[in-house]
Amino acid sequence: MAIVTFGEIMMRLQPPGYQRFTQTGSYEATFGGGEANVAVSLCNFGRETRFVTGLPENELGTACVGQLRRWGVDTRFVLRRPGRLGLYFCEKGASQRPSKVLYDRAGSVAAGLQPGDFDWDRVFDGAEWFHFTGITPALGDSVAALTKEACEAAKRAGATVSCDLNYRKKLWTREKAGTVMAGLMPFVDLLIANEEDASDVFGIRAANSDVTKGEIDLDGYRSVAEQLVGRFGVKRVAITLRESVSASRNRFSGLLYDGGELFVSKKYDMQIVDRVGGGDSFAAGLIYALTDGMRGADAVEFAVAASCLKHSVEGDFNAVTVGEVLALCGGDGSGRVQR
Amino acid sequence: MAIVTFGEIMMRLQPPGYQRFTQTGSYEATFGGGEANVAVSLCNFGRETRFVTGLPENELGTACVGQLRRWGVDTRFVLRRPGRLGLYFCEKGASQRPSKVLYDRAGSVAAGLQPGDFDWDRVFDGAEWFHFTGITPALGDSVAALTKEACEAAKRAGATVSCDLNYRKKLWTREKAGTVMAGLMPFVDLLIANEEDASDVFGIRAANSDVTKGEIDLDGYRSVAEQLVGRFGVKRVAITLRESVSASRNRFSGLLYDGGELFVSKKYDMQIVDRVGGGDSFAAGLIYALTDGMRGADAVEFAVAASCLKHSVEGDFNAVTVGEVLALCGGDGSGRVQR
Amino acid sequence: MAIVTFGEIMMRLQPPGYQRFTQTGSYEATFGGGEANVAVSLCNFGRETRFVTGLPENELGTACVGQLRRWGVDTRFVLRRPGRLGLYFCEKGASQRPSKVLYDRAGSVAAGLQPGDFDWDRVFDGAEWFHFTGITPALGDSVAALTKEACEAAKRAGATVSCDLNYRKKLWTREKAGTVMAGLMPFVDLLIANEEDASDVFGIRAANSDVTKGEIDLDGYRSVAEQLVGRFGVKRVAITLRESVSASRNRFSGLLYDGGELFVSKKYDMQIVDRVGGGDSFAAGLIYALTDGMRGADAVEFAVAASCLKHSVEGDFNAVTVGEVLALCGGDGSGRVQR
Amino acid sequence: MAIVTFGEIMMRLQPPGYQRFTQTGSYEATFGGGEANVAVSLCNFGRETRFVTGLPENELGTACVGQLRRWGVDTRFVLRRPGRLGLYFCEKGASQRPSKVLYDRAGSVAAGLQPGDFDWDRVFDGAEWFHFTGITPALGDSVAALTKEACEAAKRAGATVSCDLNYRKKLWTREKAGTVMAGLMPFVDLLIANEEDASDVFGIRAANSDVTKGEIDLDGYRSVAEQLVGRFGVKRVAITLRESVSASRNRFSGLLYDGGELFVSKKYDMQIVDRVGGGDSFAAGLIYALTDGMRGADAVEFAVAASCLKHSVEGDFNAVTVGEVLALCGGDGSGRVQR
Amino acid sequence: MAIVTFGEIMMRLQPPGYQRFTQTGSYEATFGGGEANVAVSLCNFGRETRFVTGLPENELGTACVGQLRRWGVDTRFVLRRPGRLGLYFCEKGASQRPSKVLYDRAGSVAAGLQPGDFDWDRVFDGAEWFHFTGITPALGDSVAALTKEACEAAKRAGATVSCDLNYRKKLWTREKAGTVMAGLMPFVDLLIANEEDASDVFGIRAANSDVTKGEIDLDGYRSVAEQLVGRFGVKRVAITLRESVSASRNRFSGLLYDGGELFVSKKYDMQIVDRVGGGDSFAAGLIYALTDGMRGADAVEFAVAASCLKHSVEGDFNAVTVGEVLALCGGDGSGRVQR
Amino acid sequence: MAIVTFGEIMMRLQPPGYQRFTQTGSYEATFGGGEANVAVSLCNFGRETRFVTGLPENELGTACVGQLRRWGVDTRFVLRRPGRLGLYFCEKGASQRPSKVLYDRAGSVAAGLQPGDFDWDRVFDGAEWFHFTGITPALGDSVAALTKEACEAAKRAGATVSCDLNYRKKLWTREKAGTVMAGLMPFVDLLIANEEDASDVFGIRAANSDVTKGEIDLDGYRSVAEQLVGRFGVKRVAITLRESVSASRNRFSGLLYDGGELFVSKKYDMQIVDRVGGGDSFAAGLIYALTDGMRGADAVEFAVAASCLKHSVEGDFNAVTVGEVLALCGGDGSGRVQR
Repeated sequence: MAIVTFGEIMMRLQPPGYQRFTQTGSYEATFGGGEANVAVSLCNFGRETRFVTGLPENELGTACVGQLRRWGVDTRFVLRRPGRLGLYFCEKGASQRPSKVLYDRAGSVAAGLQPGDFDWDRVFDGAEWFHFTGITPALGDSVAALTKEACEAAKRAGATVSCDLNYRKKLWTREKAGTVMAGLMPFVDLLIANEEDASDVFGIRAANSDVTKGEIDLDGYRSVAEQLVGRFGVKRVAITLRESVSASRNRFSGLLYDGGELFVSKKYDMQIVDRVGGGDSFAAGLIYALTDGMRGADAVEFAVAASCLKHSVEGDFNAVTVGEVLALCGGDGSGRVQR
Repeated sequence: MAIVTFGEIMMRLQPPGYQRFTQTGSYEATFGGGEANVAVSLCNFGRETRFVTGLPENELGTACVGQLRRWGVDTRFVLRRPGRLGLYFCEKGASQRPSKVLYDRAGSVAAGLQPGDFDWDRVFDGAEWFHFTGITPALGDSVAALTKEACEAAKRAGATVSCDLNYRKKLWTREKAGTVMAGLMPFVDLLIANEEDASDVFGIRAANSDVTKGEIDLDGYRSVAEQLVGRFGVKRVAITLRESVSASRNRFSGLLYDGGELFVSKKYDMQIVDRVGGGDSFAAGLIYALTDGMRGADAVEFAVAASCLKHSVEGDFNAVTVGEVLALCGGDGSGRVQR
Repeated sequence: MAIVTFGEIMMRLQPPGYQRFTQTGSYEATFGGGEANVAVSLCNFGRETRFVTGLPENELGTACVGQLRRWGVDTRFVLRRPGRLGLYFCEKGASQRPSKVLYDRAGSVAAGLQPGDFDWDRVFDGAEWFHFTGITPALGDSVAALTKEACEAAKRAGATVSCDLNYRKKLWTREKAGTVMAGLMPFVDLLIANEEDASDVFGIRAANSDVTKGEIDLDGYRSVAEQLVGRFGVKRVAITLRESVSASRNRFSGLLYDGGELFVSKKYDMQIVDRVGGGDSFAAGLIYALTDGMRGADAVEFAVAASCLKHSVEGDFNAVTVGEVLALCGGDGSGRVQR
Repeated sequence: MAIVTFGEIMMRLQPPGYQRFTQTGSYEATFGGGEANVAVSLCNFGRETRFVTGLPENELGTACVGQLRRWGVDTRFVLRRPGRLGLYFCEKGASQRPSKVLYDRAGSVAAGLQPGDFDWDRVFDGAEWFHFTGITPALGDSVAALTKEACEAAKRAGATVSCDLNYRKKLWTREKAGTVMAGLMPFVDLLIANEEDASDVFGIRAANSDVTKGEIDLDGYRSVAEQLVGRFGVKRVAITLRESVSASRNRFSGLLYDGGELFVSKKYDMQIVDRVGGGDSFAAGLIYALTDGMRGADAVEFAVAASCLKHSVEGDFNAVTVGEVLALCGGDGSGRVQR
Repeated sequence: MAIVTFGEIMMRLQPPGYQRFTQTGSYEATFGGGEANVAVSLCNFGRETRFVTGLPENELGTACVGQLRRWGVDTRFVLRRPGRLGLYFCEKGASQRPSKVLYDRAGSVAAGLQPGDFDWDRVFDGAEWFHFTGITPALGDSVAALTKEACEAAKRAGATVSCDLNYRKKLWTREKAGTVMAGLMPFVDLLIANEEDASDVFGIRAANSDVTKGEIDLDGYRSVAEQLVGRFGVKRVAITLRESVSASRNRFSGLLYDGGELFVSKKYDMQIVDRVGGGDSFAAGLIYALTDGMRGADAVEFAVAASCLKHSVEGDFNAVTVGEVLALCGGDGSGRVQR
Repeated sequence: MAIVTFGEIMMRLQPPGYQRFTQTGSYEATFGGGEANVAVSLCNFGRETRFVTGLPENELGTACVGQLRRWGVDTRFVLRRPGRLGLYFCEKGASQRPSKVLYDRAGSVAAGLQPGDFDWDRVFDGAEWFHFTGITPALGDSVAALTKEACEAAKRAGATVSCDLNYRKKLWTREKAGTVMAGLMPFVDLLIANEEDASDVFGIRAANSDVTKGEIDLDGYRSVAEQLVGRFGVKRVAITLRESVSASRNRFSGLLYDGGELFVSKKYDMQIVDRVGGGDSFAAGLIYALTDGMRGADAVEFAVAASCLKHSVEGDFNAVTVGEVLALCGGDGSGRVQR
């Protein structure tokens, strides 16, 4: 059974080490984007995964397809068209200096996709799961409409649907996000969010928590999860809980609410190698765990451990295996050399 | 007395060495663009030079301004606005494999400039020369109108105007180019072109020359120069003559026609380090030479020697000094170590 | 219709630039091997291609599979087993200093493959072509037996079989090579060799040619081709003709003999970026051309142009497209910038 | 109104990452020096800043001028002369291994500057502030005399004068430093020092503090500030307080004494990216804040936040903006990604 | 008086920064191996040291000899033979992701050494100390026999013998290790082990300690040391105590038991730059200290401080001096810049 | 029997690839200097070689000693003193742009050496050859006096003395060079010079040769050799003949005059990887050949082939073996891959 994700993948251009944009004379080039990251992560976990997107016909698009293939992603449903590749420039932060992301994605081939561009029934043939994030419908009205098409086809195919809210304020307003995402919620079985998304998109708040202070409050998040289930009828809600001590050090945990029980994971104290894609690696871990038959507590532990490892891996893609995640879940976070 | 150039500057992203776009995992980042290249070259020759353009307000724009400043370019007339930076991806060719340039400049801040954006009389205050290329009006109708504004102000300020035809088929059709450029010719004192521009833009052909064969015919080019002077009334025409043996080896010379006499330079046999910006370095060399009071033969020799050296320098910018150009003009192309 | 290749793929470790083994502190790591190179090249030409090999279960094996996938190679028939990955160290030569290759492939998983390891009928299901090189049977008796298994299955499936003689003196003696390769010739339809292989393996000599002098003699090679057809009954013989002016400069051409007519290609004068894989890119070009329906002259021109471009590309894999090869066949080897 | 700084700028040569001098085969080359760092920092904060120094006429001097210009520093008063560029080699420490600096600055053009080399009245035309450090007069008697010339001219122009004591034991003895610096104190309005400078140069000690233990005592430093004001009549004293947990982790704060009140900043717990230039970024922050009209508490908070951010930036120069410093002052040190 | 070590040295291939094996396109190449690391460390401490091993005759072997010489190791007793160089691939871990080592050493020249290959009496001429690790006899029966030959010759020469147990489960079983190592113990004067070795090799356990928890128990280790002295009659036992907080952070201390007294060192809290070779740097520190005449407490402090510094140094080799180690022993671990 | 060389070794700092000084942000760091290059080359040819110099006591001096040792140079006679290391910055030229060398060697430890600093009789104990270049006495009067001391001791020890004239106009005038070098000639058995040295130092000219034109005239050089033998009584004269087509391409040959016969080598057409050290590799080749018993024609062929290979090797040091040189002498300059 296959898993399908749909969204934009961009070239990520990052100065080496801790150089700033205003200092650098070179950029490391990788690729990433919410749903692509989830697809690659699931391939690394051994799942057959299809990634649906649009890419330019030029060599940059070819390079991007090659990188997706390299991790085993099924790229048969990648449309190639004249146009440009979305880019994002990423400057790695350290200590009190935050990482900085500059998007240059306007006018990309992906943002110009239209309803009817994909034969969704072929895409979802034999699929058990569909995942998208709030970034995709934010690319524009036509992509939002396409997302709805995808959700409908997923449901026709009997697939479970998961959505990571992932609010991006540079792409749309809170009002617009609230309206569009509310329209997609009826299709969603599993809703994933970080600490701020529910508030930004739906105005649902976790009381007593100030993200800039690095403190979190579990009770507040339980209430957020309950409200999301209550308002939209989603079956499960997962929330990632990040305490930012600094750009170099975060504490990370997560919770899963299944409409009844709340499962809260262990919390990891992490030295950050690369924080981007942390949420996507959680989503992928959760999808893997749930499709593997893990129950609530085990599933959220797997997802959080997967995400914890991602923070030690360069690039958007979570280059870790199921075995490595299970070893961390099993308690060995001591980082002793494996010979 | 200052020199003014006006146009777009882009970030240039190039894989290291001879890696192809489909292979690379990193890009070297420099900046370049026809008129910016001329401005930097003139600064390196000791001329006070102002570069007029638009750049985004973000850190990439700041990095670009910093690089212009680094070579001494006067950046007071660089407009900073919300928006994106034009980019181009450049893959270095070798032997029979050509270099490849992918432009990603649509929607840039520079392409969105409008008539009225600059106080041209301040820009040209104390200016003796204005240079632009055919790329700038090709960015769009509003930038073409701006270019005309600039030409008019240059003339008001008593400045000489030079134009490098530089036809870019990805930006506009030959018909459009012909119409727009013809409208700008009345302002132009010195017209610069490579082997194909006059044909592409104005349909004026150098007979008996096939650029893909690497053979050139001086008589043909004399006729092209005469036609350009005849049709548009420009005072001087300069033509660069490139024989492409391969991507690794070119022969390069140039000629200058002053409406009467034709001055043909020595021809250089070059191993190519970086071919991009070769024409711009010729234009800058010629402007320097003419504003320095060199006569026809010396001027074209200086311009061709400057361009010859550029082919041995990485990046768009011609990082050479007047002394180095004169040494080559003086006959020392033996490349012996200078201790 | 699919193409199948079978052989070993190794990690290639090469010092940056022109550093020597005794100087370097880092190695660029790519992957390559005769049949893998042909497979990647054919994928780049748009052919569906399956590569059959054995690789270790560890992360190095996974990285290798990823790189094959990245170019679109079908890796379903790659066996993963405990053991080591074959390696080769490659030092790039220049001018009078030759490139140097140190193999460290003994005891690799690929060299330990045994008859019965593959279900060849599944491998060749829907296959139209099978390609191998003389390196594969040289890995050991069991791999030679496997190669014969593969040839038999290819023939059962109705596939054309091509073989590149590729004699490696570090792997076996001329005597052993002669015996084993002669046993495989009955299956071979297209036999490919470079200037020395026919002599080394079968004692068939092109008179009047001294490879260390960089001179070649077409008449001698025609006679070699005739002898190969006569002795083994192969349908076609292709020979690559390399004149080594220096490590930095080679002249390269090829010929194809179809048992009647001899087709000799144009000769290219090349600046070398990376010479390794030159023969494999010729083989892949020829297989593409013949399966595309090109006739003798066109086919050998395509193969030689593909190989010519390979010499300007870093790494074993020929990262070029059909369009690029056809452009060079069509006569544009001037290397002018493509904007 | 312009700010003027005067001192030496050197090329900084640093092994990549954490390589030691005895291991490295390459050096990253940037430029830095106390007063140059302050000048660049002030430019980044938007201040018009002139840097006065001497540099060799060769290409290394030109490269240095280019880097100063790149950040917007006014380099009109940089003297170019035959001679050498001062260098310093810097090895980055980690954990218990300290960073190591090897100066190779003897005989530099800057160290050979003489009274009369600059037209100080032109330098200070329109200047509101002059900054120098104790390193400059330590370069030799003639440079010390030049420093006095500069102070006198600054006073004539009505500029405020700040001095960072910055004792360098490799350049002069404590006795010599005490004598020379005491002679410059009458010109100084704002005196800046780190934990040890006041003791090394003037024998004024902060009791109960052992810098190698990483413990500091505020009361001791208040007494140091009072003694400095008392003995030399400076208007304000600022002291940086660094607790070195290890080469990888420091705690940093500062205080400002205005002759009456003592303002003590918040303390930052920092992961170190690059510790060099930390004091200079504090000085620049303080000058910016005071010339911007901030009062004591705000000014020291701004200076310390600027310096904190510097520790996360590679190189001597503090590549941060006012906005970034204010954001940290405003309390967001969580390092959350800015998209 | 010279020190002799005997064992295998391998090429270490490591992806840059924190890249994983499955991501990297390049490897940094250094050399290392337990006894070679000890030899280099002792040379850095000023000891005349001979390293005995076998290396291939090819350029990789020559590069390895060159690196040993570079640190001053006496390589006269390095045998050069046809064959391969042992390799190991090393992926640097971070935070909860452990470092990973893949050995590719089977069939190396060193592993093929035979009794009689060395003239041990010449090797030990003028030697005062012999050091080996448990890795060497694990390379195979013939190398184990050679090790015994070496021990016998060392004793004949009157040298002290030290052994670092260093159990490697990929090389042999616990049973085999126990048998072989027990046979070598009669020659050993100083036995060194980390937390797990005594248990793995001899079944001697430190109760109440769980290495994956990062907790240690000194009483348990005293008992381990007593048992080792008791069972084998070694004169001294040294144990390294590592608490792994994560791959990025370890706490490290050590103890030395002289058959009577137990000397326990200070404990260092370390940010890890490179953890490999940590144990070898302890052994070298201890050998230096003891041959320098330091007594128990000082010796173990020196050894632990040397090892602490090693964790901040890239590569297997501990590129630090006696002065640097003594400075840390003396209490300055604050990492303050040394100018 | 040992060979002794005496002179300065400097750190060589070179921008990567073809970057210019004014562009680069990093430098590759190697070491080199005339006599050190000869010493390393001779070690690579298997000769026991002692290099005598002075180096600073700091880590840069240690790194330099390490690099000498790495190639097997006997560094027992390297004096370590407080002071600085000589440096030179080297920018690699290409095509018509020459390479550029900036020396920063004034005030180095080597330049401060004094008569009496070395126990020359110990240095020359068992030595058969002494080599120095004209650069060493140019470092100053005291070093010139030391050079004479060395020559006298060499003669006492019965060693042959060779001198490479190597005139450096930045170090001394022609007049001074002429006087000092003439004073050393009585000790010299073999005098080596390039095309211009004899003229610059002794006013002895090769008529009809213009080095900037890349043309050479053998008759002229025969006359130069005869004059040198005649005037100074040296036994042999060797002259390197370089035709500079461009910075990327040179033709190189040499001649040896033994007072009777003139031996002229084959001429090599070279693509330049690194031209620095070309003369030193010739000297080393010649010394090796003569001490190996080769006769005139063979000796000069060996020396020229060694130098030819050097031009394809990065860095000052000629990292090639006797086998490689002999292979080229034997006629294989085709650069075919060696597998």
